[in-house]
Amino acid sequence: MLLLHLSDVDEASWAEKLRAALAPYPVVRQSDAFDPKDIRYIFVWKPKPGAFDGLTNLKAILSLGAGVDALLKHPRLPDVPVVRFVDEDLSQRMSDYVVAHVTMHQRLYSRFRAAQLARRWDQLYPPAASQTAVGIMGMGVLGQDAVKRLKPQGFTLRSWSRTPKAIEGVEGFAGTEQFDAFLAGTDILVNLLPLTPETTGILNYETFAKLRRGGLHGGPVIINAARGGHQREADIVRALGDGTLGAASLDVFETEPLPQENPLWAIENCYITPHIAAISSETAGVAYYAGIIAAHEAGKPLINVVDRTRGY
Amino acid sequence: MLLLHLSDVDEASWAEKLRAALAPYPVVRQSDAFDPKDIRYIFVWKPKPGAFDGLTNLKAILSLGAGVDALLKHPRLPDVPVVRFVDEDLSQRMSDYVVAHVTMHQRLYSRFRAAQLARRWDQLYPPAASQTAVGIMGMGVLGQDAVKRLKPQGFTLRSWSRTPKAIEGVEGFAGTEQFDAFLAGTDILVNLLPLTPETTGILNYETFAKLRRGGLHGGPVIINAARGGHQREADIVRALGDGTLGAASLDVFETEPLPQENPLWAIENCYITPHIAAISSETAGVAYYAGIIAAHEAGKPLINVVDRTRGY
Ligand SMILES: NC(=O)c1ccc[n+]([C@@H]2O[C@H](COP(=O)([O-])OP(=O)(O)OC[C@H]3O[C@@H](n4cnc5c(N)ncnc54)[C@H](OP(=O)(O)O)[C@@H]3O)[C@@H](O)[C@H]2O)c1
Ligand SMILES: NC(=O)c1ccc[n+]([C@@H]2O[C@H](COP(=O)([O-])OP(=O)(O)OC[C@H]3O[C@@H](n4cnc5c(N)ncnc54)[C@H](OP(=O)(O)O)[C@@H]3O)[C@@H](O)[C@H]2O)c1
Repeated sequence: MLLLHLSDVDEASWAEKLRAALAPYPVVRQSDAFDPKDIRYIFVWKPKPGAFDGLTNLKAILSLGAGVDALLKHPRLPDVPVVRFVDEDLSQRMSDYVVAHVTMHQRLYSRFRAAQLARRWDQLYPPAASQTAVGIMGMGVLGQDAVKRLKPQGFTLRSWSRTPKAIEGVEGFAGTEQFDAFLAGTDILVNLLPLTPETTGILNYETFAKLRRGGLHGGPVIINAARGGHQREADIVRALGDGTLGAASLDVFETEPLPQENPLWAIENCYITPHIAAISSETAGVAYYAGIIAAHEAGKPLINVVDRTRGY
Repeated sequence: MLLLHLSDVDEASWAEKLRAALAPYPVVRQSDAFDPKDIRYIFVWKPKPGAFDGLTNLKAILSLGAGVDALLKHPRLPDVPVVRFVDEDLSQRMSDYVVAHVTMHQRLYSRFRAAQLARRWDQLYPPAASQTAVGIMGMGVLGQDAVKRLKPQGFTLRSWSRTPKAIEGVEGFAGTEQFDAFLAGTDILVNLLPLTPETTGILNYETFAKLRRGGLHGGPVIINAARGGHQREADIVRALGDGTLGAASLDVFETEPLPQENPLWAIENCYITPHIAAISSETAGVAYYAGIIAAHEAGKPLINVVDRTRGY
């Protein structure tokens, strides 16, 4: 039996679609009557503290989100495999966001917008994409998809991951000891890391000050589409103010929704989107988890299981 | 002998580089002493009315620009082949501009900027690139390069040209009779046409009203990186005002520099750049025209010759 425990999304709609996809396999919601001992799988989004209580026969926790940082902090998380959402459609949308913001900054959007506001016709030729170095933090599912999409645009690409990666056309850096070298050659820093104790607050003033200067008119740029916990917002405000950063595109925030009084809202060269870079679509999610349950019930191993000691 | 007649650019620098590339072939400037009858080639940018006078042995006119609309309107243009500038670096920069503005609008930039200004956290998920149809007017050197760059981003692509084109992954439309059908399925209209009597003013209210509605939140979008003569600016102001267009990215204008009092400057969802989408670089231009002169002097035919009856 599959139990749904989804907050902040349309659980009824998910239930209907999962029932259709899994039938005759039983699917229940919190509000339904069921025996907790019958639950083999629980599909969660923002689970409440008691979400897992009494689920003594649980085989796996299925996460609606691609990132499991919040889930892993759940105080009563049972010791069973956690499966995260990995999906092509989600990757495509994230890469759409990444390409849009990388190209916008490479074409000096902030510079031309300021000139327009001042009604100033002031020619300046942006560098070619090949002259701009994009450094991607995180070379997992999303980082690799971003590479696939940025490469045909001709950008110079660099990556940073925990373990070394050999990807054609990408200069790879790994581990804390190579972090500074990675930053030193990066004009546009894209964050696609998971949030773990090691990566918390990694987008801070010290990091920004190590980025390459002189590559992009106006200063280096950061793009954060991973988690708000990666960024120190006070440092971003400071760095945008003193020119350490030329611009920032932020889809995620320390507190979401971003509070009214947060100074980031009012910074001209800070580009805010309300955590919409990529969403897990119902269609893709249903197909993915229906497939995972069917395969596991047929005796096959689970895929995309989170490594709890690594935290992602 | 090659004569340089370049206005508004650093002619001395071009002369030095062309001399180095062509030596011992003679290169002169307007200010040098020379016999007009010795001039076999003239390299021009914004030629003055008397530019061609007395050049009775001219073999070819070499244009610094990729577009020759202004040159072909020269009142005393000799009847010799006109060679235009075609260059990979120029194409790359133009496609950089096109991709940046297409992706910005596909990700609903104007919508999120307005929300930011109002400090409003209001989630909306942009369509995937594949759900967005980009229609490119002009399938020549630049149009085809734009296709090469937009295709790996997953966009649905349509093209419009004078004669039919069969390009993989692009739905092709040709001629005036297929123009409306082309527009009817287009969310983002990119103009890369040459300016000719047929294409003058093609970006007008009637055209905008025929674009697909409902595809992009806020309405269809135009991007003009070809020539200001293609657009009717009064119509753009009207269409942005009444919602017929959701946004416009304009790199070129009816009058350049764009006059201070032009209303486009102040329109929030009009994105102005000062004719900097793509520039002919000195390095590329010198290599290209040195090669063309050397080949022609060795008896080979000229390449990229403009068809004067077509006007491009
Ligand atoms: N804003 C949104 O809408 C949105 C949507 C979806 C996902 N996300 C976020 O994006 C994150 C990444 O997703 P993914 O699917 O690409 O994850 P993934 O496949 O698990 O990849 C994670 C990458 O980060 C690297 N990494 C982890 N810890 C590191 C460390 N301490 N130092 C250096 N590199 C480290 C990993 O290195 P190794 O390769 O060496 O393991 C791996 O390359 C998710 O965790 C989620 O938070 C955001
Ligand atoms: N803003 C800037 O910085 C910048 C820089 C460089 C160039 N440009 C502009 O970009 C323009 C295009 O350059 P290009 O090198 O791609 O030109 P091109 O190779 O000559 O291609 C022109 C394309 O337009 C099509 N076309 C011409 N007249 C047409 C008509 N009446 N109806 C439908 N389609 C028509 C042609 O159709 P066929 O294929 O059937 O002939 C061809 O596909 C240049 O003329 C220039 O004005 C602007």
